[in-house]
Amino acid sequence: MPQQHKLEPVMTVEEVNALIAREFPQLNEMEEFYQAIEVFPGGCTVRLNATQRHLRPGGTVSGPALFTLADIGGYVCALSHGGPDALSVTTNLNINFVRKAEIGPIDGHCRILKLGKSLLVFDCDIVAGPDRQTVAHATGTFSIPPRK
Amino acid sequence: MPQQHKLEPVMTVEEVNALIAREFPQLNEMEEFYQAIEVFPGGCTVRLNATQRHLRPGGTVSGPALFTLADIGGYVCALSHGGPDALSVTTNLNINFVRKAEIGPIDGHCRILKLGKSLLVFDCDIVAGPDRQTVAHATGTFSIPPRK
Amino acid sequence: MPQQHKLEPVMTVEEVNALIAREFPQLNEMEEFYQAIEVFPGGCTVRLNATQRHLRPGGTVSGPALFTLADIGGYVCALSHGGPDALSVTTNLNINFVRKAEIGPIDGHCRILKLGKSLLVFDCDIVAGPDRQTVAHATGTFSIPPRK
Amino acid sequence: MPQQHKLEPVMTVEEVNALIAREFPQLNEMEEFYQAIEVFPGGCTVRLNATQRHLRPGGTVSGPALFTLADIGGYVCALSHGGPDALSVTTNLNINFVRKAEIGPIDGHCRILKLGKSLLVFDCDIVAGPDRQTVAHATGTFSIPPRK
Repeated sequence: MPQQHKLEPVMTVEEVNALIAREFPQLNEMEEFYQAIEVFPGGCTVRLNATQRHLRPGGTVSGPALFTLADIGGYVCALSHGGPDALSVTTNLNINFVRKAEIGPIDGHCRILKLGKSLLVFDCDIVAGPDRQTVAHATGTFSIPPRK
Repeated sequence: MPQQHKLEPVMTVEEVNALIAREFPQLNEMEEFYQAIEVFPGGCTVRLNATQRHLRPGGTVSGPALFTLADIGGYVCALSHGGPDALSVTTNLNINFVRKAEIGPIDGHCRILKLGKSLLVFDCDIVAGPDRQTVAHATGTFSIPPRK
Repeated sequence: MPQQHKLEPVMTVEEVNALIAREFPQLNEMEEFYQAIEVFPGGCTVRLNATQRHLRPGGTVSGPALFTLADIGGYVCALSHGGPDALSVTTNLNINFVRKAEIGPIDGHCRILKLGKSLLVFDCDIVAGPDRQTVAHATGTFSIPPRK
Repeated sequence: MPQQHKLEPVMTVEEVNALIAREFPQLNEMEEFYQAIEVFPGGCTVRLNATQRHLRPGGTVSGPALFTLADIGGYVCALSHGGPDALSVTTNLNINFVRKAEIGPIDGHCRILKLGKSLLVFDCDIVAGPDRQTVAHATGTFSIPPRK
């Protein structure tokens, strides 16, 4: 897969997690479940520590829990590469569910496909299980408001 | 918008809500938030009674909460028109967020675009607010396993 | 399906077709195949007069031909409601193919879900055949550059 | 990006190109434009040799031309890994356009995310230009009919 050029993070993973914890009080209860674990040039990795509460009948992690992971992945891409002022919002998210995911760490490997003045486009490969197979794949767009 | 032909519900909205309450013990706590409110030939309407807990910073209902509503809408389409044995699972969901949604009733008007032997395709117009403007729009596919 | 409020066309269908014929010399050969047939508040209808050249093996109209119809539908939405200066470009298009389409007139019923300062979001119900059933459904986003 | 396990091609790139040339007489005129250039375990690379006829106003390769490349990429994934009897059809395709593409070779790097009994899910990174930056990214699903 090609790397995008000239993309450099402007925040560390610790700064991103601290900002999310501060700005999203509703997420505080989710803090132990969803977190950024890596920020690198052109992308990031986010993790869902899936527990019983994320399951659907049949013992598989629910679609909304995986959607939330991909959405957070796009948000971390925007924050880490666009800066803490980037009050970006999701405008589109497309997700394919391809395998069952079980309890345990589920990682979203996110890649910035385009960081423009007003739009960020990213994709997210969500892997789980002992062999880290893809369980879902998402592509999304965030709208980035003009800087003040 | 065209109506699809020859689609008839095989379950009432009460039967659908009862089945969801029974099969999704995890959803029991959500029961008062998400519910089917109408089933009709070729589609259904589902509702999210959005409260404080569904908000993101800025006071807007979160993307995952609207995604969950669309996902439940597709599931209710599959159940109501395919029958209670239809253990369908989401394979794809694409959602566009177009306006902010505030606390209050948010309705997903769902329409079956195709009900085949193994796939259901639907769309869902999510409306909110005093003037019932579209706040999000989703399209999705459920895989319907073969009947026993 | 809900109507969006306060959307009014600023060009007629004749003006749109004339502009497309003038600005897209490459489309001139397609002119007889793709055309706008109606513009109304909040949307438009576009038509593909599908012939032998649009078929895939099996006698079904090809995916790319239906994609092109949806893409033109979004472009006509942008032109007719945003004005002739709107040099909009497609940023995202999601399409589901649900039935075979045969030779003959294929109509794309397009609806504007959001017309903002920089983005247009629309959906398009593509119908064909004697009973005008849905053969495909698309949702898309156009980026609208700032006016000069 | 993770590799999917246990995927092995059952056709070579030469066999795939020969089958497409034979089965798609309408594509014969496109043969010099669209072709498979590589088949490997878990994916393939397809190429569009974009010329004047693929351009839109402004000198950028058109959306439908890139859509067609992604669609052919999914088809080559299905053929090469599912076998020549796999008369698969596209059921969903989502594409993001992120940069302008100019005349010249445009490559679609395709990866199989899931090859099941009845569905194939893939993504396709479309790169172009001297620095092979991503110009578009697609994700799609093919329905694979049961073998005879």
